[in-house]
Amino acid sequence: MDPKAFFKLNYGVYIVSSSADGKDGGCVINTMAQVTSSPARLSIALNKNNYTLKLIETSGTFSGVVLSEDVEMEQIKRFGFQSGKNVDKYDGIPQGRDSLSNPYPIEGVCARFACRVISTLDVGTHVIVIGEVVEAEVMDSASPSLTYANYHVKKNGTTPPNAPSYQENTEKAAGYRCTVCGYILESDTLPDDFICPVCGKDASYFVKL
Amino acid sequence: MDPKAFFKLNYGVYIVSSSADGKDGGCVINTMAQVTSSPARLSIALNKNNYTLKLIETSGTFSGVVLSEDVEMEQIKRFGFQSGKNVDKYDGIPQGRDSLSNPYPIEGVCARFACRVISTLDVGTHVIVIGEVVEAEVMDSASPSLTYANYHVKKNGTTPPNAPSYQENTEKAAGYRCTVCGYILESDTLPDDFICPVCGKDASYFVKL
Repeated sequence: MDPKAFFKLNYGVYIVSSSADGKDGGCVINTMAQVTSSPARLSIALNKNNYTLKLIETSGTFSGVVLSEDVEMEQIKRFGFQSGKNVDKYDGIPQGRDSLSNPYPIEGVCARFACRVISTLDVGTHVIVIGEVVEAEVMDSASPSLTYANYHVKKNGTTPPNAPSYQENTEKAAGYRCTVCGYILESDTLPDDFICPVCGKDASYFVKL
Repeated sequence: MDPKAFFKLNYGVYIVSSSADGKDGGCVINTMAQVTSSPARLSIALNKNNYTLKLIETSGTFSGVVLSEDVEMEQIKRFGFQSGKNVDKYDGIPQGRDSLSNPYPIEGVCARFACRVISTLDVGTHVIVIGEVVEAEVMDSASPSLTYANYHVKKNGTTPPNAPSYQENTEKAAGYRCTVCGYILESDTLPDDFICPVCGKDASYFVKL
């Protein structure tokens, strides 16, 4: 099996968020797709160790935004390179709140959705969540959405994710951090054949947090 | 709800195929994603009326290929604009067969996967199928994969899908055809709020086959 085959799949870059028991949280994912149009339903996939998944399971709802090409790398780092277990990612940033009481970032966003969970599917390390869309809004019609390929280009032109401001929080998270791109695998174990979903490096590039 | 918000989601262009009871079939989909890396599992979503889904349900296996930017529009039309109920889409084209006995096209393809179905999730008009990957191969490392956005650019530079050679077969399919892009909804009913997943036109642009 050639792991490089998986890098040929196309993805976007999204932030899904939820709110439960007075806590807001959100994270970056690369898998969000419309699975039916009537009624409109989206699928998302999250790692089981992800804090945002726990909020979604408690609230039964989530918000999802599509990041645009002009999103600042800081926004992606904020939601992708640290864990909501240790920090309130929504603290101090421009945000909205949808009709299901979930927060969503508004900068660098070209569309947003508010969804009610209608089913979930356990697929091993991850859970697929299906949400029925109750709100859908274009936030920026002029900006194209960010593709995963363009994200790599963007990332390489900015401060690495282990810069001091993020180092502090990521060091408190449980899991493993990719030393190349800063991606955090929120898991107690690091499989030998794990491939970083952001930069494609293998498990030998990861360090325990 | 603004349907244009859904057009901001990122997709690729893929062909999934299967073989059962001596019949080969395949179709174009825009949703294929890796959902876990250990073990490697892919998710795909297919319309319930799709002939390929019936083959997958019978065989319990499927192949999936990632189309490359240089794929010929004829290949996409062959697998996307006609129904396997009426025509053998694999007849006469260069093809391979994987270890699970499923066919796959080899022209305009940059990667392929062979998968065993491990679970399915009914999401309404569609079914999400999770497959465990048993083979993964890069077919063309130089070509980038085709994005859905680039597919639209490619499509507009070629013969429309209602050209005679395809008209004949599509007219035999059961369902509705988008008069703008040729997409076929294989369904007995056309919901009033249906939006063409290929070109974004509403139900008024569809004609019954």
